[in-house]
Amino acid sequence: MMVTLSLIGIGSGDPRQLTQQAIDAIGELDIALVLDKGSDSSELRLLREELLRRFGRSSLRVVRLPDPPRAASGEYLARVAAWHEQRAERWEEVLREQLSPQQTAGILVWGDPAFYDSTIRIAQTIQQRGVVPLEVKVIPGISSIQLLAAGHQIALNQLNGTIHITTGRRLRDEGLPEGVDEAVVMLDGQCSFLQLATPDSEIFWGACLGSADEQLIHGRVAEVGERIREVRDKLRERKGWVMDIYLLRQKAQS
Amino acid sequence: MMVTLSLIGIGSGDPRQLTQQAIDAIGELDIALVLDKGSDSSELRLLREELLRRFGRSSLRVVRLPDPPRAASGEYLARVAAWHEQRAERWEEVLREQLSPQQTAGILVWGDPAFYDSTIRIAQTIQQRGVVPLEVKVIPGISSIQLLAAGHQIALNQLNGTIHITTGRRLRDEGLPEGVDEAVVMLDGQCSFLQLATPDSEIFWGACLGSADEQLIHGRVAEVGERIREVRDKLRERKGWVMDIYLLRQKAQS
Repeated sequence: MMVTLSLIGIGSGDPRQLTQQAIDAIGELDIALVLDKGSDSSELRLLREELLRRFGRSSLRVVRLPDPPRAASGEYLARVAAWHEQRAERWEEVLREQLSPQQTAGILVWGDPAFYDSTIRIAQTIQQRGVVPLEVKVIPGISSIQLLAAGHQIALNQLNGTIHITTGRRLRDEGLPEGVDEAVVMLDGQCSFLQLATPDSEIFWGACLGSADEQLIHGRVAEVGERIREVRDKLRERKGWVMDIYLLRQKAQS
Repeated sequence: MMVTLSLIGIGSGDPRQLTQQAIDAIGELDIALVLDKGSDSSELRLLREELLRRFGRSSLRVVRLPDPPRAASGEYLARVAAWHEQRAERWEEVLREQLSPQQTAGILVWGDPAFYDSTIRIAQTIQQRGVVPLEVKVIPGISSIQLLAAGHQIALNQLNGTIHITTGRRLRDEGLPEGVDEAVVMLDGQCSFLQLATPDSEIFWGACLGSADEQLIHGRVAEVGERIREVRDKLRERKGWVMDIYLLRQKAQS
């Protein structure tokens, strides 16, 4: 019994940001798995459910899956791996019990499944376990990286330059590699740019990109850094969550 | 007289890969600028013209702009800058002569304007020249980077890892930064992975992504590198052009 799991990138969740390929993929689903993260606000849940209502079949079943809690202590990579394994087991159970052969389940992924998302890894874990023969399909979506660049109207690379994408955790722990003086930073809950900026550092920051709450701030960190922190704090206070991202250029351009 | 220039990411050119936002943006255009690069095959021109026919207004005017030739000699960055300036002058002339105030011109950009594309820079040059007051809009599109990851069903980052994107030229000239052992490589006409691979290097390669000619090859460079070169050569011979991209992991994963 082969079943299909579609991992569908949905960008910011604005229906206008979906590709026709993503819309078609939602229309082919028999079951949609909706991961119920504790951190998900009702706003994010409602956006996904609206997409499923709008583009899904009338017979589409929505299965909510409470996300296993992450262990609070232990080595970071080991904790993440254990958490992936637990998720894989829960998804596998739904695929095994609720899908008939040839049917298709799907997961809507914020942004693009290729950038800092665990969905592909979990699907591969299920494939490797071999309990449920699984075909995986990946549909790209517009990532927050792209929304950041479009919002600020910038190319992410300098002429003949590189694009380096990292996380707040990694930036704090290891800094930027030798010879790399700018980076797109994701998943930084601590405004690390305030600690790491040089006097000339330039930042292109964005939060809630692609939504009605979108905020964009650009300037030297020395001048706009504290304002970014304030705007970020207010958004989080009002909404209960905030997703932000920034491009940090350690040498401001002339 | 303020006019608008929309830079619209169209992904691989497959209409199913456009977002609704991109489709709407095409529908708002009064003029579409089609850059006529010598290297563009009729296949690429036809794809763009098909999108304009399908999603543009019936009154949409299509203006073909022959691209200025790039100087063959001189320092690389200076040559590119001069070429951008020439392009800006040609676009500006069309915007000034053929658009009425409040009208909108647009350019369809392969992939996403944020990744290794000169369109945003040229639009900013026009803004800085100040001859034509210009509002710029950027609409993200699905980039080949994302199609590569989706095709191979991989996340581009390792757990807590970075994503490094570079060009063939840069990779040959400078290698990878210290501490970076994998990179997405674009614009590599010379199959540089064959020179730079270590015995364990792993490659995820793709060409003509998102089209009927799509090719995907994955494996150790030592095992699949020559085959990639052959497939690439055949595609270029048959089509007159080839666009390819790859993720090179210098330490193969277990």
